[in-house]
Amino acid sequence: MPGIDKLPIEETLEDSPQTRSLLGVFEEDTAAISSYFSQLFKAMQRIYDAQNELSAATHLTSKLLKDYEKQRFPLGGDDEVMSSTLQQFAKVIDELSSCHAVLSTQLADAMMFPITQFQERDLREIVILKEVFQISSDDHDAAINRYSRLSKRKENEKVKNEVMEDVYTSRKKQHETTMHYFASLNMLQYKKKIALLEPLLGYMQAQVIRHESQCKDLY
Amino acid sequence: MPGIDKLPIEETLEDSPQTRSLLGVFEEDTAAISSYFSQLFKAMQRIYDAQNELSAATHLTSKLLKDYEKQRFPLGGDDEVMSSTLQQFAKVIDELSSCHAVLSTQLADAMMFPITQFQERDLREIVILKEVFQISSDDHDAAINRYSRLSKRKENEKVKNEVMEDVYTSRKKQHETTMHYFASLNMLQYKKKIALLEPLLGYMQAQVIRHESQCKDLY
Repeated sequence: MPGIDKLPIEETLEDSPQTRSLLGVFEEDTAAISSYFSQLFKAMQRIYDAQNELSAATHLTSKLLKDYEKQRFPLGGDDEVMSSTLQQFAKVIDELSSCHAVLSTQLADAMMFPITQFQERDLREIVILKEVFQISSDDHDAAINRYSRLSKRKENEKVKNEVMEDVYTSRKKQHETTMHYFASLNMLQYKKKIALLEPLLGYMQAQVIRHESQCKDLY
Repeated sequence: MPGIDKLPIEETLEDSPQTRSLLGVFEEDTAAISSYFSQLFKAMQRIYDAQNELSAATHLTSKLLKDYEKQRFPLGGDDEVMSSTLQQFAKVIDELSSCHAVLSTQLADAMMFPITQFQERDLREIVILKEVFQISSDDHDAAINRYSRLSKRKENEKVKNEVMEDVYTSRKKQHETTMHYFASLNMLQYKKKIALLEPLLGYMQAQVIRHESQCKDLY
Protein backbone atom coordinates (compact mmCIF):
# COMPACT_ATOMS: atom_id res chain seq x y z
CA MET A 1 0.00 0.00 0.00
CA PRO A 2 1.30 3.50 -0.72
CA GLY A 3 2.39 5.70 2.18
CA ILE A 4 -0.76 7.78 2.04
CA ASP A 5 -2.66 5.03 3.86
CA LYS A 6 -1.05 5.95 7.19
CA LEU A 7 -1.26 9.11 9.29
CA PRO A 8 2.28 9.98 10.53
CA ILE A 9 2.16 9.70 14.34
CA GLU A 10 5.71 11.03 14.56
CA GLU A 11 4.49 14.38 13.19
CA THR A 12 1.69 14.87 15.68
CA LEU A 13 3.75 17.21 17.86
CA GLU A 14 4.57 19.50 14.97
CA ASP A 15 0.91 19.68 13.81
CA SER A 16 1.78 21.02 10.33
CA PRO A 17 -0.80 22.11 7.71
CA GLN A 18 0.25 19.09 5.57
CA THR A 19 -0.59 16.72 8.44
CA ARG A 20 -3.91 18.52 9.04
CA SER A 21 -4.74 18.21 5.35
CA LEU A 22 -3.96 14.48 5.38
CA LEU A 23 -6.10 14.14 8.51
CA GLY A 24 -8.97 15.68 6.51
CA VAL A 25 -8.65 12.91 3.91
CA PHE A 26 -8.71 10.25 6.63
CA GLU A 27 -11.75 11.84 8.26
CA GLU A 28 -13.55 11.93 4.92
CA ASP A 29 -12.71 8.27 4.37
CA THR A 30 -13.95 7.41 7.88
CA ALA A 31 -17.23 9.22 7.17
CA ALA A 32 -17.63 7.18 3.94
CA ILE A 33 -16.93 3.94 5.87
CA SER A 34 -19.45 4.90 8.56
CA SER A 35 -22.12 5.63 5.98
CA TYR A 36 -21.47 2.40 4.06
CA PHE A 37 -21.46 0.27 7.21
CA SER A 38 -24.61 1.92 8.44
CA GLN A 39 -26.42 0.78 5.27
CA LEU A 40 -24.93 -2.70 5.45
CA PHE A 41 -25.85 -2.96 9.13
CA LYS A 42 -29.48 -2.10 8.35
CA ALA A 43 -29.65 -4.67 5.55
CA MET A 44 -28.18 -7.38 7.79
CA GLN A 45 -30.51 -6.41 10.61
CA ARG A 46 -33.41 -6.88 8.16
CA ILE A 47 -32.14 -10.35 7.22
CA TYR A 48 -31.83 -11.24 10.90
CA ASP A 49 -35.27 -9.87 11.81
CA ALA A 50 -36.90 -11.64 8.84
CA GLN A 51 -35.21 -14.90 9.84
CA ASN A 52 -36.51 -14.50 13.40
CA GLU A 53 -40.01 -13.72 12.15
CA LEU A 54 -39.88 -16.75 9.84
CA SER A 55 -38.92 -18.92 12.79
CA ALA A 56 -41.71 -17.50 14.98
CA ALA A 57 -44.38 -17.73 12.25
CA THR A 58 -43.41 -21.31 11.40
CA HIS A 59 -43.55 -22.22 15.08
CA LEU A 60 -47.01 -20.63 15.39
CA THR A 61 -48.26 -22.59 12.35
CA SER A 62 -47.01 -25.83 13.87
CA LYS A 63 -48.66 -24.94 17.19
CA LEU A 64 -52.00 -24.25 15.46
CA LEU A 65 -51.86 -27.65 13.76
CA LYS A 66 -51.13 -29.35 17.09
CA ASP A 67 -54.08 -27.46 18.60
CA TYR A 68 -56.47 -28.81 15.95
CA GLU A 69 -57.32 -31.78 18.16
CA LYS A 70 -58.23 -29.49 21.06
CA GLN A 71 -60.53 -27.27 18.94
CA ARG A 72 -64.22 -27.67 19.71
CA PHE A 73 -65.73 -28.56 16.34
CA PRO A 74 -69.36 -29.67 16.97
CA LEU A 75 -69.11 -31.81 13.81
CA GLY A 76 -66.33 -34.09 12.69
CA GLY A 77 -64.49 -34.01 16.00
CA ASP A 78 -64.17 -37.78 15.71
CA ASP A 79 -62.06 -37.60 12.55
CA GLU A 80 -58.94 -39.45 13.67
CA VAL A 81 -57.34 -39.71 10.23
CA MET A 82 -57.42 -35.92 9.88
CA SER A 83 -56.08 -35.39 13.39
CA SER A 84 -53.16 -37.78 12.99
CA THR A 85 -52.30 -36.35 9.54
CA LEU A 86 -52.19 -32.86 11.00
CA GLN A 87 -50.05 -34.06 13.91
CA GLN A 88 -47.52 -35.38 11.40
CA PHE A 89 -47.55 -32.13 9.46
CA ALA A 90 -47.13 -30.27 12.76
CA LYS A 91 -44.11 -32.39 13.65
CA VAL A 92 -42.28 -31.70 10.37
CA ILE A 93 -43.15 -27.99 10.45
CA ASP A 94 -41.94 -27.87 14.05
CA GLU A 95 -38.58 -29.27 12.97
CA LEU A 96 -38.40 -26.69 10.18
CA SER A 97 -39.12 -24.03 12.78
CA SER A 98 -36.23 -25.36 14.91
CA CYS A 99 -33.96 -25.14 11.87
CA HIS A 100 -35.00 -21.53 11.36
CA ALA A 101 -34.29 -20.86 15.04
CA VAL A 102 -30.83 -22.45 14.78
CA LEU A 103 -30.13 -20.27 11.73
CA SER A 104 -31.30 -17.18 13.68
CA THR A 105 -28.88 -17.96 16.51
CA GLN A 106 -26.06 -18.51 14.01
CA LEU A 107 -26.81 -15.19 12.34
CA ALA A 108 -26.91 -13.43 15.70
CA ASP A 109 -23.52 -14.83 16.72
CA ALA A 110 -21.60 -14.84 13.46
CA MET A 111 -23.14 -11.95 11.48
CA MET A 112 -24.88 -9.46 13.78
CA PHE A 113 -22.37 -9.62 16.65
CA PRO A 114 -19.23 -8.60 14.66
CA ILE A 115 -20.94 -5.87 12.64
CA THR A 116 -22.63 -4.47 15.75
CA GLN A 117 -19.29 -4.48 17.60
CA PHE A 118 -17.66 -2.59 14.74
CA GLN A 119 -20.49 -0.06 14.64
CA GLU A 120 -20.81 0.46 18.36
CA ARG A 121 -17.19 0.11 19.44
CA ASP A 122 -14.75 0.96 16.65
CA LEU A 123 -16.68 3.58 14.72
CA ARG A 124 -18.08 5.09 17.91
CA GLU A 125 -14.57 5.31 19.39
CA ILE A 126 -13.45 7.43 16.42
CA VAL A 127 -16.40 9.78 16.85
CA ILE A 128 -15.50 10.26 20.52
CA LEU A 129 -11.78 10.67 19.79
CA LYS A 130 -12.61 13.29 17.16
CA GLU A 131 -14.52 15.28 19.79
CA VAL A 132 -11.70 14.93 22.36
CA PHE A 133 -9.18 15.95 19.67
CA GLN A 134 -11.27 19.04 18.85
CA ILE A 135 -11.54 20.04 22.52
CA SER A 136 -7.82 19.65 23.22
CA SER A 137 -6.96 21.57 20.02
CA ASP A 138 -9.21 24.41 21.15
CA ASP A 139 -7.67 24.35 24.64
CA HIS A 140 -4.18 24.50 23.16
CA ASP A 141 -5.13 27.38 20.83
CA ALA A 142 -6.56 29.29 23.80
CA ALA A 143 -3.39 28.76 25.87
CA ILE A 144 -1.17 29.93 22.97
CA ASN A 145 -3.41 32.94 22.54
CA ARG A 146 -3.13 33.86 26.21
CA TYR A 147 0.67 33.42 26.02
CA SER A 148 1.03 35.69 22.95
CA ARG A 149 -1.00 38.47 24.60
CA LEU A 150 1.07 38.05 27.78
CA SER A 151 4.40 38.74 26.07
CA LYS A 152 3.28 42.21 24.98
CA ARG A 153 2.55 43.46 28.49
CA LYS A 154 4.42 43.61 31.76
CA GLU A 155 3.02 40.94 34.05
CA ASN A 156 4.26 39.53 37.29
CA GLU A 157 6.34 36.35 37.30
CA LYS A 158 3.56 34.26 38.92
CA VAL A 159 0.98 34.85 36.17
CA LYS A 160 3.62 34.35 33.46
CA ASN A 161 4.64 31.02 34.96
CA GLU A 162 1.00 29.94 35.19
CA VAL A 163 0.34 30.73 31.52
CA MET A 164 3.51 28.96 30.38
CA GLU A 165 2.57 25.95 32.49
CA ASP A 166 -0.84 26.04 30.79
CA VAL A 167 0.73 26.06 27.32
CA TYR A 168 2.94 23.13 28.26
CA THR A 169 0.07 21.09 29.73
CA SER A 170 -2.34 21.76 26.87
CA ARG A 171 0.29 21.00 24.21
CA LYS A 172 1.17 17.75 26.00
CA LYS A 173 -2.53 16.88 26.20
CA GLN A 174 -3.12 17.70 22.53
CA HIS A 175 -0.08 15.69 21.49
CA GLU A 176 -1.33 12.62 23.35
CA THR A 177 -4.87 13.04 22.04
CA THR A 178 -3.67 13.49 18.46
CA MET A 179 -1.48 10.39 18.66
CA HIS A 180 -4.42 8.41 19.97
CA TYR A 181 -6.74 9.80 17.28
CA PHE A 182 -4.23 9.17 14.45
CA ALA A 183 -3.54 5.65 15.69
CA SER A 184 -7.27 4.86 15.72
CA LEU A 185 -7.76 6.29 12.22
CA ASN A 186 -4.79 4.25 10.95
CA MET A 187 -6.13 1.13 12.67
CA LEU A 188 -9.55 1.64 11.10
CA GLN A 189 -8.05 1.15 7.63
CA TYR A 190 -7.13 -2.39 8.65
CA LYS A 191 -10.17 -3.08 10.80
CA LYS A 192 -12.63 -2.09 8.06
CA LYS A 193 -11.65 -5.08 5.92
CA ILE A 194 -12.10 -7.56 8.74
CA ALA A 195 -15.28 -5.75 9.75
CA LEU A 196 -16.66 -6.19 6.23
CA LEU A 197 -15.59 -9.78 5.66
CA GLU A 198 -16.35 -11.22 9.11
CA PRO A 199 -20.17 -10.80 9.12
CA LEU A 200 -20.31 -11.98 5.48
CA LEU A 201 -18.39 -15.12 6.37
CA GLY A 202 -20.69 -15.53 9.38
CA TYR A 203 -23.72 -15.29 7.09
CA MET A 204 -22.30 -17.90 4.71
CA GLN A 205 -21.30 -20.16 7.58
CA ALA A 206 -24.82 -19.97 9.05
CA GLN A 207 -26.31 -20.98 5.66
CA VAL A 208 -23.91 -23.88 5.30
CA ILE A 209 -24.24 -25.14 8.88
CA ARG A 210 -28.01 -25.07 8.51
CA HIS A 211 -27.85 -27.40 5.55
CA GLU A 212 -25.14 -29.73 6.72
CA SER A 213 -26.36 -30.41 10.24
CA GLN A 214 -29.60 -31.65 11.76
CA CYS A 215 -31.77 -29.88 9.21
CA LYS A 216 -30.42 -31.64 6.16
CA ASP A 217 -32.49 -34.82 6.52
CA LEU A 218 -35.69 -32.80 6.59
CA TYR A 219 -35.58 -32.06 2.90
CA MET B 1 -69.15 -40.71 8.89
CA PRO B 2 -72.38 -40.83 10.93
CA GLY B 3 -75.56 -39.34 9.48
CA ILE B 4 -75.30 -36.20 11.62
CA ASP B 5 -72.65 -34.84 9.26
CA LYS B 6 -75.24 -33.91 6.64
CA LEU B 7 -78.08 -31.40 6.72
CA PRO B 8 -81.21 -33.03 5.16
CA ILE B 9 -82.00 -31.00 2.03
CA GLU B 10 -85.20 -32.99 1.52
CA GLU B 11 -86.58 -31.51 4.76
CA THR B 12 -85.97 -27.89 3.85
CA LEU B 13 -89.58 -27.36 2.77
CA GLU B 14 -91.00 -28.63 6.05
CA ASP B 15 -88.60 -26.44 8.13
CA SER B 16 -89.14 -28.46 11.36
CA PRO B 17 -87.67 -27.51 14.78
CA GLN B 18 -85.44 -30.63 14.55
CA THR B 19 -83.97 -29.40 11.27
CA ARG B 20 -83.52 -25.88 12.70
CA SER B 21 -81.73 -27.38 15.72
CA LEU B 22 -79.42 -29.40 13.48
CA LEU B 23 -78.79 -26.25 11.44
CA GLY B 24 -77.67 -24.58 14.68
CA VAL B 25 -75.02 -27.29 15.18
CA PHE B 26 -73.76 -26.81 11.62
CA GLU B 27 -73.61 -23.04 12.05
CA GLU B 28 -71.65 -23.45 15.28
CA ASP B 29 -69.24 -25.80 13.52
CA THR B 30 -68.86 -23.32 10.65
CA ALA B 31 -68.07 -20.54 13.11
CA ALA B 32 -65.38 -22.77 14.72
CA ILE B 33 -63.92 -23.53 11.26
CA SER B 34 -63.90 -19.82 10.35
CA SER B 35 -62.14 -18.93 13.58
CA TYR B 36 -59.55 -21.69 13.19
CA PHE B 37 -58.85 -20.84 9.57
CA SER B 38 -58.56 -17.17 10.37
CA GLN B 39 -55.72 -17.96 12.82
CA LEU B 40 -54.04 -20.34 10.38
CA PHE B 41 -54.36 -17.79 7.59
CA LYS B 42 -52.64 -15.13 9.72
CA ALA B 43 -49.79 -17.51 10.63
CA MET B 44 -49.28 -18.49 6.98
CA GLN B 45 -49.43 -14.83 5.93
CA ARG B 46 -46.66 -14.14 8.47
CA ILE B 47 -44.54 -16.97 7.00
CA TYR B 48 -45.11 -15.58 3.51
CA ASP B 49 -44.36 -11.97 4.51
CA ALA B 50 -41.20 -13.02 6.39
CA GLN B 51 -40.06 -15.03 3.37
CA ASN B 52 -40.60 -11.99 1.13
CA GLU B 53 -38.75 -9.74 3.55
CA LEU B 54 -35.88 -12.25 3.73
CA SER B 55 -35.68 -12.25 -0.05
CA ALA B 56 -35.72 -8.44 -0.23
CA ALA B 57 -33.17 -7.96 2.58
CA THR B 58 -30.82 -10.55 1.06
CA HIS B 59 -31.12 -8.84 -2.30
CA LEU B 60 -30.33 -5.46 -0.71
CA THR B 61 -27.25 -6.89 1.02
CA SER B 62 -26.00 -8.29 -2.27
CA LYS B 63 -26.66 -4.94 -3.96
CA LEU B 64 -24.68 -3.07 -1.27
CA LEU B 65 -21.72 -5.41 -1.77
CA LYS B 66 -21.85 -4.85 -5.53
CA ASP B 67 -21.95 -1.09 -4.87
CA TYR B 68 -18.75 -1.24 -2.79
CA GLU B 69 -16.65 -0.58 -5.87
CA LYS B 70 -18.67 2.52 -6.71
CA GLN B 71 -18.36 4.00 -3.22
CA ARG B 72 -16.09 7.03 -2.99
CA PHE B 73 -13.57 6.04 -0.34
CA PRO B 74 -10.75 8.67 -0.41
CA LEU B 75 -8.37 5.99 0.88
CA GLY B 76 -7.97 2.40 -0.23
CA GLY B 77 -10.08 2.79 -3.35
CA ASP B 78 -7.36 0.92 -5.21
CA ASP B 79 -7.80 -2.26 -3.20
CA GLU B 80 -8.62 -4.73 -5.96
CA VAL B 81 -8.40 -7.85 -3.83
CA MET B 82 -11.08 -6.51 -1.51
CA SER B 83 -13.28 -5.44 -4.39
CA SER B 84 -13.11 -8.78 -6.19
CA THR B 85 -13.69 -10.69 -2.93
CA LEU B 86 -16.82 -8.64 -2.26
CA GLN B 87 -18.01 -9.19 -5.84
CA GLN B 88 -17.81 -12.92 -5.27
CA PHE B 89 -19.68 -12.67 -1.98
CA ALA B 90 -22.27 -10.52 -3.73
CA LYS B 91 -22.73 -13.15 -6.43
CA VAL B 92 -23.39 -15.97 -3.96
CA ILE B 93 -25.69 -13.84 -1.81
CA ASP B 94 -27.54 -12.78 -4.96
CA GLU B 95 -28.16 -16.42 -5.82
CA LEU B 96 -29.39 -17.05 -2.27
CA SER B 97 -31.71 -14.10 -2.70
CA SER B 98 -33.05 -15.64 -5.94
CA CYS B 99 -33.69 -18.89 -4.07
CA HIS B 100 -35.63 -16.96 -1.43
CA ALA B 101 -37.60 -15.26 -4.20
CA VAL B 102 -38.42 -18.63 -5.84
CA LEU B 103 -39.58 -19.91 -2.45
CA SER B 104 -41.76 -16.81 -2.03
CA THR B 105 -43.42 -17.40 -5.38
CA GLN B 106 -43.96 -21.07 -4.51
CA LEU B 107 -45.53 -20.10 -1.19
CA ALA B 108 -47.76 -17.54 -2.90
CA ASP B 109 -49.03 -20.07 -5.45
CA ALA B 110 -49.23 -23.26 -3.41
CA MET B 111 -49.90 -22.03 0.14
CA MET B 112 -51.40 -18.55 0.15
CA PHE B 113 -53.59 -18.95 -2.94
CA PRO B 114 -55.63 -21.96 -1.73
CA ILE B 115 -56.10 -20.71 1.84
CA THR B 116 -57.04 -17.22 0.60
CA GLN B 117 -59.52 -18.72 -1.85
CA PHE B 118 -61.12 -20.77 0.95
CA GLN B 119 -61.29 -17.70 3.22
CA GLU B 120 -62.56 -15.26 0.63
CA ARG B 121 -64.73 -17.52 -1.49
CA ASP B 122 -66.04 -20.51 0.46
CA LEU B 123 -66.30 -19.08 3.98
CA ARG B 124 -67.50 -15.74 2.66
CA GLU B 125 -70.20 -17.49 0.57
CA ILE B 126 -71.60 -19.10 3.72
CA VAL B 127 -71.71 -15.74 5.52
CA ILE B 128 -73.66 -14.24 2.60
CA LEU B 129 -75.96 -17.26 2.31
CA LYS B 130 -76.70 -17.04 6.03
CA GLU B 131 -77.80 -13.42 5.57
CA VAL B 132 -79.94 -14.28 2.53
CA PHE B 133 -81.44 -17.21 4.46
CA GLN B 134 -82.28 -14.89 7.37
CA ILE B 135 -83.91 -12.30 5.10
CA SER B 136 -86.05 -14.85 3.24
CA SER B 137 -87.07 -16.48 6.56
CA ASP B 138 -88.18 -13.09 7.86
CA ASP B 139 -90.08 -12.37 4.61
CA HIS B 140 -91.81 -15.73 4.84
CA ASP B 141 -92.75 -15.15 8.50
CA ALA B 142 -94.14 -11.74 7.60
CA ALA B 143 -96.24 -13.20 4.76
CA ILE B 144 -97.61 -15.96 7.02
CA ASN B 145 -98.40 -13.34 9.63
CA ARG B 146 -100.34 -11.21 7.14
CA TYR B 147 -102.19 -14.32 5.96
CA SER B 148 -103.20 -15.34 9.51
CA ARG B 149 -104.54 -11.85 10.26
CA LEU B 150 -106.37 -11.85 6.94
CA SER B 151 -108.42 -14.97 7.72
CA LYS B 152 -110.00 -13.34 10.76
CA ARG B 153 -111.47 -10.40 8.80
CA LYS B 154 -113.64 -9.99 5.78
CA GLU B 155 -111.46 -8.77 2.94
CA ASN B 156 -112.05 -8.51 -0.73
CA GLU B 157 -110.92 -11.29 -3.08
CA LYS B 158 -108.17 -9.19 -4.65
CA VAL B 159 -106.29 -8.51 -1.40
CA LYS B 160 -106.74 -12.14 -0.30
CA ASN B 161 -105.28 -13.37 -3.57
CA GLU B 162 -102.39 -10.98 -3.27
CA VAL B 163 -101.54 -12.16 0.25
CA MET B 164 -101.79 -15.82 -0.74
CA GLU B 165 -99.56 -15.14 -3.74
CA ASP B 166 -97.14 -13.49 -1.36
CA VAL B 167 -97.07 -16.53 0.94
CA TYR B 168 -96.49 -18.83 -2.03
CA THR B 169 -93.67 -16.66 -3.44
CA SER B 170 -91.93 -16.16 -0.12
CA ARG B 171 -92.15 -19.86 0.79
CA LYS B 172 -90.76 -20.81 -2.61
CA LYS B 173 -87.96 -18.27 -2.15
CA GLN B 174 -87.21 -19.50 1.36
CA HIS B 175 -87.19 -23.13 0.22
CA GLU B 176 -84.69 -22.37 -2.53
CA THR B 177 -82.51 -20.27 -0.24
CA THR B 178 -82.54 -22.95 2.49
CA MET B 179 -81.59 -25.68 0.03
CA HIS B 180 -78.72 -23.56 -1.21
CA TYR B 181 -77.61 -22.73 2.36
CA PHE B 182 -77.84 -26.38 3.52
CA ALA B 183 -75.95 -27.59 0.45
CA SER B 184 -73.17 -25.11 1.10
CA LEU B 185 -72.95 -26.05 4.79
CA ASN B 186 -72.81 -29.74 3.84
CA MET B 187 -70.17 -29.05 1.21
CA LEU B 188 -68.06 -27.12 3.72
CA GLN B 189 -67.61 -30.31 5.78
CA TYR B 190 -65.77 -31.83 2.81
CA LYS B 191 -64.07 -28.67 1.64
CA LYS B 192 -62.57 -27.91 5.04
CA LYS B 193 -60.30 -30.95 4.88
CA ILE B 194 -58.94 -30.07 1.46
CA ALA B 195 -58.71 -26.44 2.54
CA LEU B 196 -56.56 -27.48 5.50
CA LEU B 197 -54.33 -29.98 3.73
CA GLU B 198 -53.79 -28.12 0.44
CA PRO B 199 -51.84 -25.10 1.79
CA LEU B 200 -49.83 -27.39 4.08
CA LEU B 201 -48.85 -29.57 1.14
CA GLY B 202 -48.06 -26.40 -0.78
CA TYR B 203 -45.78 -25.26 2.03
CA MET B 204 -43.97 -28.60 2.12
CA GLN B 205 -43.68 -28.71 -1.65
CA ALA B 206 -42.16 -25.22 -1.69
CA GLN B 207 -39.55 -26.28 0.90
CA VAL B 208 -38.69 -29.42 -1.04
CA ILE B 209 -38.55 -27.75 -4.47
CA ARG B 210 -36.29 -25.08 -3.02
CA HIS B 211 -33.77 -27.67 -1.94
CA GLU B 212 -33.96 -30.00 -4.88
CA SER B 213 -33.73 -27.50 -7.70
CA GLN B 214 -31.30 -24.79 -8.68
CA CYS B 215 -30.60 -23.78 -5.09
CA LYS B 216 -29.19 -27.12 -3.98
CA ASP B 217 -25.70 -26.61 -5.38
CA LEU B 218 -25.33 -23.37 -3.47
CA TYR B 219 -24.84 -25.11 -0.16
